[in-house]
Amino acid sequence: MILHAGPPIEWPRMCGPMRGAVCGIAVFEGWAPDLESAARMAADGAFELSPNHHFDAVGPMTGMTTASQPVMVVENRRFGNRAYCTINEGLGKVMRFGGNDEQVLDRLRWLRDVLGPAMGAALRASGGIALKSLVARGLTMGDEMHQRNVACSSLVLRALAPALAKTASDSNALSQTLGEILDFIAANDQFFLNIAMAMGKAIMDPVCGIHGASIVTAMSRNGTDFGIRVSGTGDTWFTAPVEMPQGLYFPGFTEADANPDMGDSTIIETIGLGGFAMGAAPAVAGFVGAGAPSEAGNFTRTMGEITVDENPEWTIPAMDYLGVPTGIDIRLVVETGLAPTINTGIAHREPGVGQVGAGVVRAPMACFRQALESFAKRVGVT
Amino acid sequence: MILHAGPPIEWPRMCGPMRGAVCGIAVFEGWAPDLESAARMAADGAFELSPNHHFDAVGPMTGMTTASQPVMVVENRRFGNRAYCTINEGLGKVMRFGGNDEQVLDRLRWLRDVLGPAMGAALRASGGIALKSLVARGLTMGDEMHQRNVACSSLVLRALAPALAKTASDSNALSQTLGEILDFIAANDQFFLNIAMAMGKAIMDPVCGIHGASIVTAMSRNGTDFGIRVSGTGDTWFTAPVEMPQGLYFPGFTEADANPDMGDSTIIETIGLGGFAMGAAPAVAGFVGAGAPSEAGNFTRTMGEITVDENPEWTIPAMDYLGVPTGIDIRLVVETGLAPTINTGIAHREPGVGQVGAGVVRAPMACFRQALESFAKRVGVT
Repeated sequence: MILHAGPPIEWPRMCGPMRGAVCGIAVFEGWAPDLESAARMAADGAFELSPNHHFDAVGPMTGMTTASQPVMVVENRRFGNRAYCTINEGLGKVMRFGGNDEQVLDRLRWLRDVLGPAMGAALRASGGIALKSLVARGLTMGDEMHQRNVACSSLVLRALAPALAKTASDSNALSQTLGEILDFIAANDQFFLNIAMAMGKAIMDPVCGIHGASIVTAMSRNGTDFGIRVSGTGDTWFTAPVEMPQGLYFPGFTEADANPDMGDSTIIETIGLGGFAMGAAPAVAGFVGAGAPSEAGNFTRTMGEITVDENPEWTIPAMDYLGVPTGIDIRLVVETGLAPTINTGIAHREPGVGQVGAGVVRAPMACFRQALESFAKRVGVT
Repeated sequence: MILHAGPPIEWPRMCGPMRGAVCGIAVFEGWAPDLESAARMAADGAFELSPNHHFDAVGPMTGMTTASQPVMVVENRRFGNRAYCTINEGLGKVMRFGGNDEQVLDRLRWLRDVLGPAMGAALRASGGIALKSLVARGLTMGDEMHQRNVACSSLVLRALAPALAKTASDSNALSQTLGEILDFIAANDQFFLNIAMAMGKAIMDPVCGIHGASIVTAMSRNGTDFGIRVSGTGDTWFTAPVEMPQGLYFPGFTEADANPDMGDSTIIETIGLGGFAMGAAPAVAGFVGAGAPSEAGNFTRTMGEITVDENPEWTIPAMDYLGVPTGIDIRLVVETGLAPTINTGIAHREPGVGQVGAGVVRAPMACFRQALESFAKRVGVT
């Protein structure tokens, strides 16, 4: 079984980078001897494909989650549920952007054999990391936790490093290995992204299935379809074709190279961060090509039009401690015509290449109209 | 010899917390058996007292620097000079705020015997940490590097942790010791302050003694006098009585408990950070009681009126990448009547207590008027 990002999709409709990732992870797991065989096996239906969201999990971009990969666990102590996400691989050519060569697979093996067990020991010994306060702090440090995680990644390293050191002797890890582990985390400004995603899933899952509640509980894309789920309509996915992000491309790439919108990472916007918290992260506005940094707060104010409240514990200093706009209401989205703003990475459309840029994308309005019609029927409005 | 913050001062005119620190450091160095003896010896002139600034050094608040303390070295590679600062002790009851009991001295011993040598090994092995880019990044993460260093402290830990781990085996440090070291750095949001100060000193020292240059090269306070130095007037200190910061006090304290302005940390403002970079750090505006966070940029714009340029490499995203106002010109200060804005910690006026608040203080105009008169004479304007 291979879990993927977004709403359900089968091999024939999968986009290039997701196909590349499926082949890569099949080789990683030892289910196929090479990428070509893996592609044939996938076309023959050898692998069971299922969304991460159906197993309390989320994954960035292609979102591959399989049995041998270590996952980070975020616990929602108020409601007792848990959510899962793999460890972020770093930047450049990585599986989440469709990379699948030996270098990519070797990194996954190192995550499985070295980093995963070390993080597990450190987190168990230290009792875990409290995320609500860490994210609150990150918002005062220029992160929006989707396209900018430099502060939260640094704060997590700060919290983990002492515990990693203290548990290194227990596992007989040499200081050289500890050094490599710390180097790996320290080199990745997006290390926190996968943690933020699992946190988002853990926050929103208890909101699912409340009769009469019109709040979006998940937004997600598989590179072909954009899907949303709404509290009052339970597990149903409302889907529409994904859109192409508007953004900035790395040197040597253009929109012609880009794959449309992909990944479970939109769970970040579902909890009021990412594009919704743009006012906390003026530097992101430049990175994703979203206009003047000094006007980044306008994105946050606009998202306030389609959400039911501000989060009193996650606030933005530069906006005089305005809480991030939280709880997307499908009625407000359809009424205002304002679709959620999403900050996103952009993958190359071919398998095996990787990230080519970053930008802003809107969730397709069709998802919200479908959801509202279904919701209206359920609550007896015709 | 005991080096202290600010312009020259002898024991009889020293304020309470600086006297407390002098006594404490004398006991730490083994020059006096106890605090009472140390005070008598100081009154008898047993210790040679000199400003840090006279030895390429700086120190926060009381600024005690003595022979046994490890110092961090910042090298200005463009001009080949170096500057020095002790390691930040953390928050609470510490010597820089006049603390001098056994707990304070034990911490200094640990800095001397454990943290100092470990940092030395790590920094030598890793080739040091490039500060210009680190500070540039910190400005995008809500730091102004005087009263807020949470980002830069985290980034330094991120840079140091792998090297600390890799060099731990060389010095036979146990992972428990490494864990304690990482815990200590991770627990201190102001860890970077002393690094920023040594950086400021290393930046400004080559500016000293340029004929006809009216740029401030140092601002510093000893808790009694505020002193400035100006490029074209060389080593001369122009002094005036220090002012009382306007700020917010920790629970249980009021302005009646406060010592007037103190420390070499105003070297931070001398290089365009601290109060000059308030626009980068809206959260600081609240911490120091300086008005609405959304208006923090006004401090930065105002300081642009008394500086000669913006720093193109240290910019503020929320102000559309405006460079921090740099190079305080005494002619502009006197002409506009705008004194430099300084973000500062506030010490208790009695020895042995510690920090009681944080606030904003203005450099006394009298220093700038005196300096301008002296400068005018030197360049032949009468």
